[in-house]
Amino acid sequence: MLEDKNEQRTSLAELGEFGLIKHLTDQVKLTHKSSIKGVGDDAAVLEFKNKQILVTTDLLIEGVHFDLSYMPLKHLGYKAVMVNLSDVYAMNGKATQITVSLAVSNRFPLEAIEELYAGIHLACKTYNVDLIGGDTSSSTKGLLLSITAIGEANKEDIVYRNGAKPNDLIVVTGDLGAAYLGLQVLEREKQVFQANPNAQPELDNYTYLVERQLKPEARKDIPNLLKELDVKPTSMIDISDGLSSEIIHICSQSEVGCNLFEDKFPLDPQVISTCEEFKLDSTTVALSGGEDYELLFTVDTADYPKIKANPHLTVIGHITEKDEGMNLITRGNQKIELTAQGWNAMLK
Amino acid sequence: MLEDKNEQRTSLAELGEFGLIKHLTDQVKLTHKSSIKGVGDDAAVLEFKNKQILVTTDLLIEGVHFDLSYMPLKHLGYKAVMVNLSDVYAMNGKATQITVSLAVSNRFPLEAIEELYAGIHLACKTYNVDLIGGDTSSSTKGLLLSITAIGEANKEDIVYRNGAKPNDLIVVTGDLGAAYLGLQVLEREKQVFQANPNAQPELDNYTYLVERQLKPEARKDIPNLLKELDVKPTSMIDISDGLSSEIIHICSQSEVGCNLFEDKFPLDPQVISTCEEFKLDSTTVALSGGEDYELLFTVDTADYPKIKANPHLTVIGHITEKDEGMNLITRGNQKIELTAQGWNAMLK
Repeated sequence: MLEDKNEQRTSLAELGEFGLIKHLTDQVKLTHKSSIKGVGDDAAVLEFKNKQILVTTDLLIEGVHFDLSYMPLKHLGYKAVMVNLSDVYAMNGKATQITVSLAVSNRFPLEAIEELYAGIHLACKTYNVDLIGGDTSSSTKGLLLSITAIGEANKEDIVYRNGAKPNDLIVVTGDLGAAYLGLQVLEREKQVFQANPNAQPELDNYTYLVERQLKPEARKDIPNLLKELDVKPTSMIDISDGLSSEIIHICSQSEVGCNLFEDKFPLDPQVISTCEEFKLDSTTVALSGGEDYELLFTVDTADYPKIKANPHLTVIGHITEKDEGMNLITRGNQKIELTAQGWNAMLK
Repeated sequence: MLEDKNEQRTSLAELGEFGLIKHLTDQVKLTHKSSIKGVGDDAAVLEFKNKQILVTTDLLIEGVHFDLSYMPLKHLGYKAVMVNLSDVYAMNGKATQITVSLAVSNRFPLEAIEELYAGIHLACKTYNVDLIGGDTSSSTKGLLLSITAIGEANKEDIVYRNGAKPNDLIVVTGDLGAAYLGLQVLEREKQVFQANPNAQPELDNYTYLVERQLKPEARKDIPNLLKELDVKPTSMIDISDGLSSEIIHICSQSEVGCNLFEDKFPLDPQVISTCEEFKLDSTTVALSGGEDYELLFTVDTADYPKIKANPHLTVIGHITEKDEGMNLITRGNQKIELTAQGWNAMLK
């Protein structure tokens, strides 16, 4: 039926994921009083009496989001939960429940699915989240997981992407780029293994990187930390697609610009040494790597004293007026425009 | 990695879907005060202050749940929403929001996805539900949809599967078996078309059946009707897998038995005539067909006067003590044990 229609076709690749979402949801109107925030943030916000509810969902597909040749199923289950909880924390909320839908082809025995669920259960236990439902199905090819996370927050605590204002400081938690490099290391080992199945993986020098790729932790601690510090960010997002892409989301939705400072990016020593070994630019890796599941947020300059000495938080730039654009300021003090795919290496 | 392990394997087919869910979620413990009901009913129930929230999710996979050679994408989008809303109504709740996650292979042009979303949007509009989030992804093969529906209800209105008690009447909404026969008609036309691509589909005598298969409607009206009639069912479920399978869920969770009366089953005239044409037993079709998306519930006998003349509702049997088993009483007054796959044709 589909194959017969040959009228006007637009390639999905042209639009890209965000373009497609926007295109498909532009005409959506929220009509329920309980729908406070729909499509367009890390999580949707619903209000039922005093608490607001956060709902977020992610789809993980074999061959697209993960490769089972180096991703153990238990880790996959754990990571799939992290990806979702991270979105709840990025709203400054507390994750409380998840649903898990799963489709598997018949190449998976029960024990494999048990492994997957062991990771899911471990994540739920560690993060104090209840598994409350789901769906299972066969698939014609491979494994896929769809997880929805639900969380709660007081209305006044929720942080959206659209509140950043000029002069706000841009803050990132933890460090950047390690998960991406972990993937590069695993890909290399896979190729070595394919060439010589008796080769032993050499991962000793990359333990942090591999752990960041295979067993990321969502920043549950950050909403609590912010409360302790008495800081409410003006905007917040989690870093799943890469710092560059995420700060562009914040700037676009807040209608502001930004300057990020290359020399401020928090990098683990393994990131620096492995970038040298792989001949990769560490700034590019930090900007475009993705899968860090750290939080990126903006705060009023008045809050600077509260955050400045905190070992979890690094100030990496500041918000500007919109017409100044979104830029990386290099160590050599050059201004380079940020793009969602990292940055355009065209000097201005 | 998976393929290397050859220790102990249990086939997923042995367990079946419900067995697998039970197996995987047996050790789940709900720890949040807000998690009132987790895995095991049509929807999970969460409590945040005065309202309880219903959450349900379903996965639809090309080649498993639908065939695009006769399922137009717009209808698929509409039906995918219905499948989920039906679960909310089966809790006696009001559906308020959905999230939609979608993965597509590159054989789908934008226009195809727009068609799909047109169906989703139409369903949202018709049923007054807000689309509040989701995820999109590429897939390595085919199309898949994962939808989560959220609803609300007052705590005292929610109907679970486990409240049926001996002597309760068993009631079904609408009629049974038409969606299954619609599928048979479409499958036949597909084969005719494959043999002779110039053949015109002959669907005039099957309009109701085909509509029930391609564009089912969830019973949003029933929770309202029950309120008007001042009837609170003792248990309720929606008919997605077939009447037999659903009444078994109710009986198992309520620890009761049942007698269903073959001569009471509500059947559309097209169901009866098409069963004759296809040489199918209409009782088997009604029991095992599935995809009717009608509601099946039980009521106290004291409520009989309130429901007896209602054109939407048909009493098809009654609940018994558990040790009497779950049975079909035939027109010939024979007692046949119900099974999830229909019924065992062994006379007792």
